[in-house]
Amino acid sequence: MPELRKDPILGRWIIIATERGKRPTDFIIEKNTSKGGFCPLCPGNEGTTPAEVLSYGRPTPAPNKPGWELRVVPNKYPALVIEGDLNKEGEGLYDKMNGIGAHEVLIETPDHNASFTDLPPNKIVQIFWAFRDRLVDLGRDSRFKYVMVFKNYGQAAGASLEHSHSQLVALPILPRMIVSELEGSLTYYKYKERCIFCDIIRQEIRDDVRIVCQNDHFLTITPYAPRSPFEMWVLPKNHSSAYVDMDDSSFHALANIFSETMKRLALCIPNVPYNFVLHTAPLRAEPMKHFHWHFEIMPKLTQIAGFEWGSGFYINPIPPEVSARYLKEVM
Amino acid sequence: MPELRKDPILGRWIIIATERGKRPTDFIIEKNTSKGGFCPLCPGNEGTTPAEVLSYGRPTPAPNKPGWELRVVPNKYPALVIEGDLNKEGEGLYDKMNGIGAHEVLIETPDHNASFTDLPPNKIVQIFWAFRDRLVDLGRDSRFKYVMVFKNYGQAAGASLEHSHSQLVALPILPRMIVSELEGSLTYYKYKERCIFCDIIRQEIRDDVRIVCQNDHFLTITPYAPRSPFEMWVLPKNHSSAYVDMDDSSFHALANIFSETMKRLALCIPNVPYNFVLHTAPLRAEPMKHFHWHFEIMPKLTQIAGFEWGSGFYINPIPPEVSARYLKEVM
Repeated sequence: MPELRKDPILGRWIIIATERGKRPTDFIIEKNTSKGGFCPLCPGNEGTTPAEVLSYGRPTPAPNKPGWELRVVPNKYPALVIEGDLNKEGEGLYDKMNGIGAHEVLIETPDHNASFTDLPPNKIVQIFWAFRDRLVDLGRDSRFKYVMVFKNYGQAAGASLEHSHSQLVALPILPRMIVSELEGSLTYYKYKERCIFCDIIRQEIRDDVRIVCQNDHFLTITPYAPRSPFEMWVLPKNHSSAYVDMDDSSFHALANIFSETMKRLALCIPNVPYNFVLHTAPLRAEPMKHFHWHFEIMPKLTQIAGFEWGSGFYINPIPPEVSARYLKEVM
Repeated sequence: MPELRKDPILGRWIIIATERGKRPTDFIIEKNTSKGGFCPLCPGNEGTTPAEVLSYGRPTPAPNKPGWELRVVPNKYPALVIEGDLNKEGEGLYDKMNGIGAHEVLIETPDHNASFTDLPPNKIVQIFWAFRDRLVDLGRDSRFKYVMVFKNYGQAAGASLEHSHSQLVALPILPRMIVSELEGSLTYYKYKERCIFCDIIRQEIRDDVRIVCQNDHFLTITPYAPRSPFEMWVLPKNHSSAYVDMDDSSFHALANIFSETMKRLALCIPNVPYNFVLHTAPLRAEPMKHFHWHFEIMPKLTQIAGFEWGSGFYINPIPPEVSARYLKEVM
């Protein structure tokens, strides 16, 4: 059973994922992303993954058989496990609980060689629908407070499988980063009675120096204080705190802007490793006037070294206005 | 002039270090640590670094000439610059200030091939004295609120030069991580009227499952909620909030335990990349009953991927009790 432990000074939680148990020597040579060879995410190998929890596109119902266009399965080496109780307890001054949660892999396409950047927008629509379906389903489990939805692309960004996939992790506590965003945006709301993200959108459209692309419903910007060159945020133009509340008609607009955003990034820096993460309201939360869901896209271009670890400060060698100009002019 | 910018939602500061200006194509191939070839940190090449601000060991005063045992110079490609005013200002809802600060390189030894782990304790004493001398000197500049003292070892941990060195960055604001530690430990102090670090030390000595090594003055543990396998903290056993207040007689004890700690790590995982960071009270702060200075040592063994970026949560495949056992039994 994995364990969640809390740093007593910072309140930072960590997951001791012993199911992934490693000995020190396992770290001596960094693993490479599996290239070639057997792929557990490919059609025909459905039996090697845990049983699917969602699939799209199979003409007749035949779970865990080929014919799917998209498939969601539990992670075979989960950071958290779905069965059990939280059993919160202390160990002297420390706090821990069982590592209860869900860890799922969303296999985005049956095509082993397809890259997210090259997927057609209607395929990306499908992926965004699957995020919503899984968020809704996992949200029914009252033990879970939040679902992290994210994608790691490229070995340097933490991907261990080549086949295009994203991940979902349902957590029994609110992640610190989301707590900070909720608190920061609430502080602003109390002062101004406006959503800070809505204000950012208005200012970015007015200033027009950090806009990468936009359509009627969405806006991609390089944020004012980015941690990394080419960091981008994709935001809905109309206020909404929860991704799951997105209306059906917006999925195409989101897929279009996301697809364009990733293509622009790939044209600037071919094959760049990256992570993207959905930031949305906690599960089952009432609509919030102060919080605004969005995606954050982080290319893996700079090192996290002692300075960043120790300070929580980031050093970025390219101003976002310069990144935005490159991204805008590349297409 | 570099620029400091604040994320308006999280209050997280970032440094736009344009002096290190890069174009997108500069990122396509990751730079390798310079191996062989010209080393600006070697004796004889003093003229290629900015003029030194401190040196030890030269028999006769001859700055910027060979003969030194340890040398501190301003970083040639600084993240922050020392001349100028902060000029805090707004840009609509955003906040920024000039990137005023100091960025120094501490050249630990004239020997290009020496590794920190193999340095004799009396050399490490010298390094720790130099940290104190620079902290005291930089603390005289009232524009600076904090000095980050850290070391990056190995390319994966962000080191761009092979010659053994550490770094100091003087900052005009308190880093978020230190603010969180100060706040977290103050909350505990208000509730318990005890220093949380002192309580941790007592519990760790009593439990004796996460101790790596100790001497009369210092203790090395794997923390209860570590971000990474083999993360270690080195703490003074007696309460003290500021590194610069360490009494002269403790320097040898610190060098001894630090040297032993790093040797144990190297025996467990040969040539592991790592960062270490000094956590100490803000410059010129009165002694604090709630805060306790210490070093944090972070081996670079796991990837920071989408999950960690998005959540601020870390997944660690090895419990600290297991790391501690390996580290303890290896010598």
